[in-house]
Amino acid sequence: MKTCIVRKGLPRIDAIPKVSGEAQYTVDLKMPGLLVGKILRSPHAHARIKSIDTSAAKALDGVLAVITAEDVPENLFAFYQWQADKHILCTDRVRYVGDEVAAVAAMDDDTAEAALDLIKVEYEALPVILDIDEAMKPGAQLIHEGKESNSTWSVDRLFGDPDKALAECDYVVEGTYVTHQLAHCCLEVSNCIAKWDKRDKLTIWTNAQAPHTQRQEVARVLGIPRRNVRIINSTMGGGFGSKLVMDMKLPIASVLSRLTGRPVRIVNTRSEEFTTAKTRYPYTLHLKTGATKDGKILVRDLTLIGDNGAYHDKGPATINFSSMMFGTLYNVPNIRFHGELVYTNKAMGTAFRGFGNPQVTFATESQIDELAEKMGMDPLELRRRNVNHPDETAACGAEVCGCAMSECMELAAKEIGWEEKRGKGAPLRGVGLANMVHTGGGGRFYGFNSAEAIIKLSDEGTVTLITSALDMGQGAHTAMAQIAAEELGVRLEDINVLSHDTELTPYDLGSWGSRATFMNGNAVLAAAEDARQSLVEAAAEMLEADPADILVEESKVWVKGSHEKHDLSEVVDHTVNEHGEPISGIGRFVDHLPEGYTIPTAFAKNIPCFSFGTQAVEVEVDPETGQVNVLRVVAAHETGTTINQTMAEGQLEGSMAQGIGFALMERLVHDDEGRIVNDRFLDYKIPNIGDVPEMKAYCVESVGTRGPFGAKGIGEPGLVPTAPAIANAIYDAIGVRLHEVPMTREQIIKALKEKRASET
Amino acid sequence: MKTCIVRKGLPRIDAIPKVSGEAQYTVDLKMPGLLVGKILRSPHAHARIKSIDTSAAKALDGVLAVITAEDVPENLFAFYQWQADKHILCTDRVRYVGDEVAAVAAMDDDTAEAALDLIKVEYEALPVILDIDEAMKPGAQLIHEGKESNSTWSVDRLFGDPDKALAECDYVVEGTYVTHQLAHCCLEVSNCIAKWDKRDKLTIWTNAQAPHTQRQEVARVLGIPRRNVRIINSTMGGGFGSKLVMDMKLPIASVLSRLTGRPVRIVNTRSEEFTTAKTRYPYTLHLKTGATKDGKILVRDLTLIGDNGAYHDKGPATINFSSMMFGTLYNVPNIRFHGELVYTNKAMGTAFRGFGNPQVTFATESQIDELAEKMGMDPLELRRRNVNHPDETAACGAEVCGCAMSECMELAAKEIGWEEKRGKGAPLRGVGLANMVHTGGGGRFYGFNSAEAIIKLSDEGTVTLITSALDMGQGAHTAMAQIAAEELGVRLEDINVLSHDTELTPYDLGSWGSRATFMNGNAVLAAAEDARQSLVEAAAEMLEADPADILVEESKVWVKGSHEKHDLSEVVDHTVNEHGEPISGIGRFVDHLPEGYTIPTAFAKNIPCFSFGTQAVEVEVDPETGQVNVLRVVAAHETGTTINQTMAEGQLEGSMAQGIGFALMERLVHDDEGRIVNDRFLDYKIPNIGDVPEMKAYCVESVGTRGPFGAKGIGEPGLVPTAPAIANAIYDAIGVRLHEVPMTREQIIKALKEKRASET
Repeated sequence: MKTCIVRKGLPRIDAIPKVSGEAQYTVDLKMPGLLVGKILRSPHAHARIKSIDTSAAKALDGVLAVITAEDVPENLFAFYQWQADKHILCTDRVRYVGDEVAAVAAMDDDTAEAALDLIKVEYEALPVILDIDEAMKPGAQLIHEGKESNSTWSVDRLFGDPDKALAECDYVVEGTYVTHQLAHCCLEVSNCIAKWDKRDKLTIWTNAQAPHTQRQEVARVLGIPRRNVRIINSTMGGGFGSKLVMDMKLPIASVLSRLTGRPVRIVNTRSEEFTTAKTRYPYTLHLKTGATKDGKILVRDLTLIGDNGAYHDKGPATINFSSMMFGTLYNVPNIRFHGELVYTNKAMGTAFRGFGNPQVTFATESQIDELAEKMGMDPLELRRRNVNHPDETAACGAEVCGCAMSECMELAAKEIGWEEKRGKGAPLRGVGLANMVHTGGGGRFYGFNSAEAIIKLSDEGTVTLITSALDMGQGAHTAMAQIAAEELGVRLEDINVLSHDTELTPYDLGSWGSRATFMNGNAVLAAAEDARQSLVEAAAEMLEADPADILVEESKVWVKGSHEKHDLSEVVDHTVNEHGEPISGIGRFVDHLPEGYTIPTAFAKNIPCFSFGTQAVEVEVDPETGQVNVLRVVAAHETGTTINQTMAEGQLEGSMAQGIGFALMERLVHDDEGRIVNDRFLDYKIPNIGDVPEMKAYCVESVGTRGPFGAKGIGEPGLVPTAPAIANAIYDAIGVRLHEVPMTREQIIKALKEKRASET
Repeated sequence: MKTCIVRKGLPRIDAIPKVSGEAQYTVDLKMPGLLVGKILRSPHAHARIKSIDTSAAKALDGVLAVITAEDVPENLFAFYQWQADKHILCTDRVRYVGDEVAAVAAMDDDTAEAALDLIKVEYEALPVILDIDEAMKPGAQLIHEGKESNSTWSVDRLFGDPDKALAECDYVVEGTYVTHQLAHCCLEVSNCIAKWDKRDKLTIWTNAQAPHTQRQEVARVLGIPRRNVRIINSTMGGGFGSKLVMDMKLPIASVLSRLTGRPVRIVNTRSEEFTTAKTRYPYTLHLKTGATKDGKILVRDLTLIGDNGAYHDKGPATINFSSMMFGTLYNVPNIRFHGELVYTNKAMGTAFRGFGNPQVTFATESQIDELAEKMGMDPLELRRRNVNHPDETAACGAEVCGCAMSECMELAAKEIGWEEKRGKGAPLRGVGLANMVHTGGGGRFYGFNSAEAIIKLSDEGTVTLITSALDMGQGAHTAMAQIAAEELGVRLEDINVLSHDTELTPYDLGSWGSRATFMNGNAVLAAAEDARQSLVEAAAEMLEADPADILVEESKVWVKGSHEKHDLSEVVDHTVNEHGEPISGIGRFVDHLPEGYTIPTAFAKNIPCFSFGTQAVEVEVDPETGQVNVLRVVAAHETGTTINQTMAEGQLEGSMAQGIGFALMERLVHDDEGRIVNDRFLDYKIPNIGDVPEMKAYCVESVGTRGPFGAKGIGEPGLVPTAPAIANAIYDAIGVRLHEVPMTREQIIKALKEKRASET
């Protein structure tokens, strides 16, 4: 494919505003009468609220409003309304440390803080449950009264006959794998400004990954028409899933604004961000994998308990997505999957880059190595015998069209030096490898998956692209601009992207599930095709040529065979300023329901495009300190067509760093009373520049997908296989198998001690 | 026509933000680092700049930039580039009191003021020319060196054979009529914020009547690509033509922003607004009208000298437009028109509501009465014999499709009590009447006339309308919302209008020439038709009916014959949230060039739609003081179809008040050195509540135009015939004919004195 703009490693279109400080985040916004809002949060993980006295706070000079549950609608909220379990402000009970109890609006920060201190809340402590096993015990304290148990949701998937298959297998391995609560660690904390105006319209400026659905959520929880709510996104400093579902500060700031008649801004402190901005769902996974002696994996059986935290959010979607990826990878013919969510008195889980896949892949790809070990087979060879193939339909129903799994795996293995190093490296050094599959275009999780875009060309070739592609920092706007520029034949710098406003942009599900490039990209491409047609017609008219002979490239227009190139601006100027005919286009992409689609037999058909990949790592372990040094990571991930080489590599590199954190460092740690003790970056360890090793990211192009120019999403995959690759490398280095992430120094030392004990 | 939304007198959609103070004007905007810009203006009407010393100003604490001509591009500017005669900042010469000499950017107002005081400019006075006769004298001081004379532009139009016709006429009257410089008197002064960012993109927030063309103008004068300039309009407090062409504060603030790296706001003081925000072009008109004895007007011959002021602006367009209306009214078969522009050392003229038509109509409609007087014919009867007719093509080429001139005239005459009062009223009381024709849809003055609009429906029936219709206070957005709501079948309150941003809205010529309702309205209608089609298809699918049987009205959807009405939100929710198919539409309206179009033989074909009207007034004159009390004004104006009864009446009433000001009060007065002495509302008299009489505005519906739902623009006509109607009524009351507006008390007393002298 000849391309001018797409496939290049062009600088991001928002690079300069971001490095120069011109980009406006919500905290940078100024508006007349803006008030400071702050939230009083529960210091208890579980307690009854006996009384709240706000009189002293209300009496404080500079305080304009103090609200409690009495001042807000009683509507219960959850992402899925059928799971609604959370009030805007707690009524009679708090369920985790950080739960919203009251809120104030004041003239400035200090006054707001002082007002919070003046609110007197009397609590009566209730038993605190931090552990899923304890939560599931018969007779355990119910975290939500009226429910039958703390187990709050479950799903089962069955394909083939796992029991029969297990009986037929020559080798079966079984194990339990554990992951914990992680923070998203966005550089920008959750925040918003709400302004409820005199026309009864509510405008919210915030950093949302999905403004349109959050708009619905705000309307729902406040009990107002959706059409009265507008969400405008400022520049965003990261999302990673944490900003997908509405935070309670949005309705809280809204109510404060309605009461005061002024805009109200609420911004998380970093501690609030760590303790209340939701977490990755911790999974406890009990997994069995069975294979024949020639290395064909026949069956996988997984029971997965997710720690839901205190309230519902994206749990069912996360576990369902886990099941889809679990069912698709290696196309195992017999699959059993049981997923369950259990309430605890901790911050709630939510979406987090990878969406349940890193947890499951840690288990499955660790166990492949365990299985290979048991079979005496090279784990790479075992994987080779089970790779996914292009154009296959998996037993779970997934339609794998484009697929470059083999290419990714062989490339990563070669680049890490698998043949030379595996099982025969230097002492205390080892290599490991893991595969993964992920969606490359979101999914039909809301019942549909679609996108729309609008393009207008104005005088002198100014191109405005109105897209719902949500740029939370990942570069979606640059990718959209490249797609539009490529198709229109204009320079990248001539594309201006307008986005991030529910009034302006077409209804859209937001950025998640590596969705934007594939879905919004296809819509942008369609809009550009539409506009290009008018552009070509205008050029043909101006140049007195056949439209079929018009060529447009890099903002130059010419007639095939002619050497006279015209600047695009001449054509647009001509049609706009002489004929008054602006050039515009609307494009749409809908991932239509397949024929005969039924849930659950073909639930993985929800995924419009799969993206495979492999990571291989080399580690060195210090047996004295338990320190694992990751020496090198090689990532080979399928991109279909790489829209922007630099950004794709950046996505992969960032993901790998996050994967290293997931594998070795990151975990929110609670004390016995349910307080998170590491609520700042000094205590919550993420990889820093010294922890990040040499990385090599390969974007493997492949054919067969319906993405724009053949592209797939690459936002999440790079995080998925890192942890099992490291676990497998640790095993290669020191012969111990860790089943829990983060794989801390303590765990390494303990495992080595156990290994030595068992060997003696 | 059955209509639900259109034709009603619905409240404006921006009423609440405006009365509550929530609407954000440019002065309300806040942004980080915002600086205050101020302009040092010439105190001389004509002088050479010998030197400028900015060192003391630059040294002042809190001053961030001081600029003179040396710091700005040398590009000369005028609305028509071929007339370019003005620098951003004066180089070696100032040509009127208020000319831009230097500018500063500072931390606050006081510092900026102090800095201006510290700039030392040495001037050498040059002869000051304030009068067109003096300017045109051979050997007069040239206001622009290098030109041949101060007469700077002229145009001639000829239809038929005026000399032959004059010879054939039984009656000919001749006279000279004079008008003066008037201020637009917008409640909101001219202002802007310019921010030149690190990507070299320039964003300007301002109050522009034509953001897209001002964007071109800013780019042109700064010598930068148009695509690097974005203009965003804030809420506007009036335009009246004064904010159509770029003010120099836009490039000045831009350069200050580029130098300081911060946004810079410049806001006119009220005095700057009166003295530098441009004026209505003063015309001196020498007019002849000839008729046969049976009252057929055979010929009109007009020589018109326009006082251009010190620099070029909209003069040629204004005079050309004057010629079109002059040629069209009464469809006179023989027309001669000579128009000319002459430089003087005064503020420059620009567009002003009515666009040269009130000045000409003052002359023509005064002279009709003079002719009737000479013929001994009732002036109403003379007008009856010369009315325009529907579907006629005037001798000047104007295609008058819809025309309700007769209806308007008879209605106004009846309502004022013409038969009972004319020539036989109480002593010192009189009635007068005047007709007019005006464009009802702008014109193809830029070579084309077109508009585009975009509509999107989101979940729950939220409708976003993206229109370039520029709302400067006249209510264009309400009219557009009504047109969209009517066609889509939704409630008015469900329409959200997005506009006023050159990146967002399609290229458009702006609001002028009563253009928005006709042009933008047609584009909105087309977009709504497009969206409605998808809406109907979605409803048909949901309700399992034939699309032809779907009815949509007031946000209810049902199948013809069925009693079950569904809320529109159900349908949109269904298609958006179940199928992922948002509803959208793009619409365009182009006033195509007529076949065989040539200038000047058919120059009036530039007008897509004509709007006729009549005003009748009753006055009482105090012969001692010269005071004219307007007792009653009746206006009957053609609207085609009235989109909004209340707003149309409001437009007419506001215009009539402005017409009374033009007739009796308003004039910028200069001292001998060219300084405007009445530069504040205490001294510049506009009609106040006590001056405004009982008014009755009739919107006369008519057929035959191509406007949306048959509508015509009504923004300007109400001002056009007021002054001659008053002049005619004064004559009826006291028998004196005034040929100069404003018709002041001094003039009345003088004329009465002359009349008494001639009678004795």
